[in-house]
Amino acid sequence: MDRHQQLIAGLAEPEDTKIVLLVLDGVGDIRTASRRQTPLEAAKTPHLDALAARASTGRITPVAPGVTPGSGPGHLALFGYDPTSPEAEIGRGVLEALGLGLDIAPGTLTARGNFATAGADGKLTDRRAGRIPTAECVRLAEKLNRAIAARPDLPVEATVHAGEAHRFVLLLRGPNLRPELADTDPQELGEPPLAVTALRPEAAGTAERVAALVAVLEAAIADEPKANRVLLRGFSMLPHLPSFGELYHLRAAAFAGYPLYRGVASACGMEVVPCGKRFGDALDAIAKRWSDFDYGFIHVKQTDQSGEDGDFDAKVAVIEEVDAALPRLLDLRPDVLAITGDHSTPVAYSAHSWHPVPLLLWSETCFADGVERYDELAVLGGTLGTLPSHQLMGLLLAHAGRLKKYGA
Amino acid sequence: MDRHQQLIAGLAEPEDTKIVLLVLDGVGDIRTASRRQTPLEAAKTPHLDALAARASTGRITPVAPGVTPGSGPGHLALFGYDPTSPEAEIGRGVLEALGLGLDIAPGTLTARGNFATAGADGKLTDRRAGRIPTAECVRLAEKLNRAIAARPDLPVEATVHAGEAHRFVLLLRGPNLRPELADTDPQELGEPPLAVTALRPEAAGTAERVAALVAVLEAAIADEPKANRVLLRGFSMLPHLPSFGELYHLRAAAFAGYPLYRGVASACGMEVVPCGKRFGDALDAIAKRWSDFDYGFIHVKQTDQSGEDGDFDAKVAVIEEVDAALPRLLDLRPDVLAITGDHSTPVAYSAHSWHPVPLLLWSETCFADGVERYDELAVLGGTLGTLPSHQLMGLLLAHAGRLKKYGA
Repeated sequence: MDRHQQLIAGLAEPEDTKIVLLVLDGVGDIRTASRRQTPLEAAKTPHLDALAARASTGRITPVAPGVTPGSGPGHLALFGYDPTSPEAEIGRGVLEALGLGLDIAPGTLTARGNFATAGADGKLTDRRAGRIPTAECVRLAEKLNRAIAARPDLPVEATVHAGEAHRFVLLLRGPNLRPELADTDPQELGEPPLAVTALRPEAAGTAERVAALVAVLEAAIADEPKANRVLLRGFSMLPHLPSFGELYHLRAAAFAGYPLYRGVASACGMEVVPCGKRFGDALDAIAKRWSDFDYGFIHVKQTDQSGEDGDFDAKVAVIEEVDAALPRLLDLRPDVLAITGDHSTPVAYSAHSWHPVPLLLWSETCFADGVERYDELAVLGGTLGTLPSHQLMGLLLAHAGRLKKYGA
Repeated sequence: MDRHQQLIAGLAEPEDTKIVLLVLDGVGDIRTASRRQTPLEAAKTPHLDALAARASTGRITPVAPGVTPGSGPGHLALFGYDPTSPEAEIGRGVLEALGLGLDIAPGTLTARGNFATAGADGKLTDRRAGRIPTAECVRLAEKLNRAIAARPDLPVEATVHAGEAHRFVLLLRGPNLRPELADTDPQELGEPPLAVTALRPEAAGTAERVAALVAVLEAAIADEPKANRVLLRGFSMLPHLPSFGELYHLRAAAFAGYPLYRGVASACGMEVVPCGKRFGDALDAIAKRWSDFDYGFIHVKQTDQSGEDGDFDAKVAVIEEVDAALPRLLDLRPDVLAITGDHSTPVAYSAHSWHPVPLLLWSETCFADGVERYDELAVLGGTLGTLPSHQLMGLLLAHAGRLKKYGA
């Protein structure tokens, strides 16, 4: 835990107040020479405007100036974890699993897999099994899952999930699994796949169990013409983070329609509440569960999607969709409501970017700073200034009356 | 390397884009009660204004609020090195050498020298040799250099460079020199000069070689009435910094007319391109070498000089000189152009100061934030906010498409 989070956690105390963090993924944008308005500037947002006029505003920097975050670090920062600290790192296997839409829980060991081809001598002749078609990959994954089901004596629970072409994801569950395993991909031809080996002594047991599984998997496909071996890389688990309960005395719940955000929330000890993919679906879910949590994280994906698509009008439309439904959220009467993003996704880039993200923070006791719009340039005049995303959590807790005085 | 630089270096990747950093030394200034305009505000700068209207703007803080930087730390920060980290420290000998206009290379050992007077018993009677005139110092330096030339068997190459009055700089070159040597100045009278001693075991060889040199130097002046001994202090080398190539995958070149800036650039692994002292000279040089580098650092000294001189009109004139020639730089079509300073040098102070320095950053993909002037107050409305100088490098790389995404 970094020093800032230690400070905040040391001051956090229980209180009967409710915080809602509304994340409009990728909402931040830029003006360019050819388009002199951002989507937030162009959108008609009467409810956001009215809220801004009663709120504090400012900006958050996701990681550091110039650094474009992935969604993992972007969200961990919003949840108060320094995204550059090594313990907050999210491994490649986990990312691949979340990217495939798999819900993974803390303790699930993940790995990225390739089907590969080896000759009779066991040496690799193709690390990607000739880039077999995806349908073939699906067939092979089913074959492996059947082989696993036929061996209930295996020392680890496993499922294989087909990806594109020769790629798959392996999920492993069971007691005391550790992620410190070396890749079995030798990264060159003419070598056999590497044995599963532990990178640290405490992972030795896991290595043995995974090796037993790999033997079963490879026996099941030994007769395949191309995909007769498996190569595993990026063994990883959701990071083991101190939870919202431990850190902040918050019962936290996540209302997110997409697996990656559910995964990150879950790694922070939030309850993941099933809900649909639009803002309205999240509102339905949060209203139903309103009395069960102190902190609700709502994730809206479509702001990022439209930015990634380079679709200005679609991004404006999503912002207006959120604005139109905002009164439903306000009617629930959260004590603190923050609206921001995990990063910017400028339409002109069709990609994530490093630009600071506008922030609106409302509570009954907030500094109403006179900024009357929630957009990139208006909030430059706001009282919150520009702060690192991972320092937002302290402001949320403070506005909820959940932070003790520091010293006397 | 500090953690921020580690983060940026870990994300940097090669790309076919060119960055130019134009440093207007000491450009930042202040309004005072008696002068309600800064030089940047007073100057007529049509080209800078037009560029600002298409650019992102903000400010950089060289070291920390209230901390006035020397030129060394000011520039190291612009180059992405945390100027407060111990490995970025520039020793006194190096500064004195650079201040005398000597070009020193990494690996050159420098020391500040005093001529001093000792009695027949070897004990010091005057640590400054009666503050001999500078002409006398020049004569003595030549005498020492002749003595060195007469001894080709010396275990180290050395040159003596006269400074003002009793002061000189000693430059030492040769394989495996180390800077960890104690001062030979005992700092009090009635003591003999101290022997050259190593502060760390790995400098023992260097201490022996320098001691042999000192013996030759002192033999050469033993018959002088006043300046019959030498005292050496501040042994140091240019800091050994990871280079621009290693850190950022950039071929970097410096276009600076003054030695101090060439020295700092050289310590960062930049190629130092010979050029004259005015902005126009640097433009001539950079145009000639345009295809040879990815990152060009241009240094304009006269903004600082006029500030140091307390000459408002001269500072305005230099800014207008830069503005008038700016189209020549734009015609070269850099992908990223940043204009800022290493620190402020307010006319009212006639000295460096701690004030944040205005920053203009242009690229095709920058956030055109609507600020229409490059001056201290206008840029307060800019999207870049106020950031530590050593975080500018990340923004330059990001705008050049040279930073990978962090996490996924």
